Amino acid sequence: MKRSERLVDLTNFLLENPFKLQKLSTFTERYDSSKSTISEDLEIVRQVFKTRDIGILKTYTGTSGGVEFIPDISDEKSLDFAKDIEELMRHKNRILPGGYLYLSDIIGNPVNLKKIGRILAHDFIDARVDAVMTIATKGIPIAQAAAECLNVPFVVVRRDPKVTEGATLAVNYMSGSSAKVESMVLSKRALSPGQRVLIVDDFMKGGGTLNGMKSLVHETDCRVAGVSVFIEGPFHGERPITDYRSMLRVDKIDLANHSIDVWLGNMFNNTKKESN
Amino acid sequence: MKRSERLVDLTNFLLENPFKLQKLSTFTERYDSSKSTISEDLEIVRQVFKTRDIGILKTYTGTSGGVEFIPDISDEKSLDFAKDIEELMRHKNRILPGGYLYLSDIIGNPVNLKKIGRILAHDFIDARVDAVMTIATKGIPIAQAAAECLNVPFVVVRRDPKVTEGATLAVNYMSGSSAKVESMVLSKRALSPGQRVLIVDDFMKGGGTLNGMKSLVHETDCRVAGVSVFIEGPFHGERPITDYRSMLRVDKIDLANHSIDVWLGNMFNNTKKESN
Repeated sequence: MKRSERLVDLTNFLLENPFKLQKLSTFTERYDSSKSTISEDLEIVRQVFKTRDIGILKTYTGTSGGVEFIPDISDEKSLDFAKDIEELMRHKNRILPGGYLYLSDIIGNPVNLKKIGRILAHDFIDARVDAVMTIATKGIPIAQAAAECLNVPFVVVRRDPKVTEGATLAVNYMSGSSAKVESMVLSKRALSPGQRVLIVDDFMKGGGTLNGMKSLVHETDCRVAGVSVFIEGPFHGERPITDYRSMLRVDKIDLANHSIDVWLGNMFNNTKKESN
Repeated sequence: MKRSERLVDLTNFLLENPFKLQKLSTFTERYDSSKSTISEDLEIVRQVFKTRDIGILKTYTGTSGGVEFIPDISDEKSLDFAKDIEELMRHKNRILPGGYLYLSDIIGNPVNLKKIGRILAHDFIDARVDAVMTIATKGIPIAQAAAECLNVPFVVVRRDPKVTEGATLAVNYMSGSSAKVESMVLSKRALSPGQRVLIVDDFMKGGGTLNGMKSLVHETDCRVAGVSVFIEGPFHGERPITDYRSMLRVDKIDLANHSIDVWLGNMFNNTKKESN
C-alpha cells in the first residue's frame, strides 16, 4: 500500500476510533509497513489535524505506547459553531404560545447536533468522562452527540420508571421553577460506582432538574465531571445550581414583538478558565 | 500543501459531509491546486474508500458536476455489524420481569449506535430519504444514528402533545399487541409535503405503532421510503404491517431458563432483493 493510500485509510481509522489508544503495531500490521514509516504517516496526520482544527493526535512512548486521537476543536471553532446555532435560534417563528421555544428542528438535525455535541464536550475533553447523563426526552439527542464526541456511553434518566429499565434508583428533587417536589429515576445498571459523569440537558430553567441529576450521580457513588446545558433560559430567583456551563443564553422571549434575546452562554465568558 | 497533507484533510472533509455534492472548485480553492491534481487525489480516496468498505465516492460530470461521498457499507460488513450486536443481545441478564428486554446499554453506546444506524440505513442509501421518523423515547437514538448516516434530519413522534412542539397533527392507531385504540402526535412543522420518510424504531411487537407512524406520514402528504426496525419481537397473530425490515429477530424469551432466542432479521434474508 502506498503512503497516499495509507493516509486516507489511517485518517478514517483514527476519526472512527476517538479516545482509544492505538498501538503502533496495529498500524504496522494493518499496512504491512515498518514502524518508522508509520511514524512518518502519523506525523503528517498530526500536522493536518492540528492545522485544520480536526483534533489532537497524542503520542505515548514506551512499551505500552501508541497514539490516541482526541477530537478536540479550538476555542475559536467552538465559538464559530456556537454562533451558527445562535443565528438559528433568533428565528422569530420559534416562539410558541406561553413563551416556549420550538427547538426540535435544531436538535433533530445531525449537522447541528454534531456542533452542539462538540461544544458541550469541549471543556471536558481532558476530564476522562466515563458516561454522559441526560433526562428524557429532549436531552437525548444532545447527550448522544456529546457522548459520540467523547466516545463514551450515555444514560437516560426518566420521570417515571419503565418496565424496560429493570430495577431503578429514584431521587426526589425540587423543581427550580415551580418549587414542587418531583422525582426522577435511573436504571440501577446504567452506571457503575466511581464513574465520572458529564450531565447535559437541552434547556435549563430553574436548574432543579440538573440538580436532581447531580444527586442521582451521587446516589450511584459516581462523580459529577461537569454540567453542560445547550440553552440557559430566563429565570428570576436563585438557582439551586451554580457550577453549570451553558452554550447559549436566552434572556427574554418577547411574545408581543415576536423577538428572542439570545446570547452566547457562560462557557464563552473570557474569565471561565479562571473562575473554574 | 503536499498531496499527503491534502489527502488527510480531503478524507476528513468528505467523511464530515456525506450525501452532499461538492463541486471540484471547492477543492481547487481549498487546496490552491489544479483540477487535474484534485482529480488524482479523489481517485486515490475513491479506491481506498472502496477497498476498505468506507463508502462510495460518486462522480458527476458536466458544469454542475462534482463528487458526492455516500457512506455505504457492503452487505458483508452490514452482516458483520449485525452479528456483533446479535452477540450482545444474547446476554441472559437482559431478561427483565415480564419478559421484557434491557436494551439501554446497547442503544446508549455510540459505537453500537453507529453500527445500527448504518445497517438500518443500508438498504435506503439510494432512496433519497429526506427525513427519518421515530417515536419517543427509545427510538430516538436509533433514529439519530440512521439520520446521521443519511445526513438528513429526524423527527420524533410522541404519545402526548408537548407545549414545546407547537401545533400538532394527531392520528389514532390500533395497537397490534393490545388491540386498543391509541393516539400519537407529530409537530405540524416537523415535515413538509412531498418528503420521503424512513420510519425506524427500536422494537416491534404487533407493529401497530409502526403502522400509526405510516398513517402520520400519509397525513402530512409525505411518502414512506421504508420501515426499518432494530428488533422484531415475538408476536402471535397477524401484524397490520408486512413491508418492514428488521435487523434482529427475537423469537422467544424463556424466563425459566434465562435464555433469549435471537436471530438475524429479515433484512438479511437472501431473498430480500427479490421479495421487495
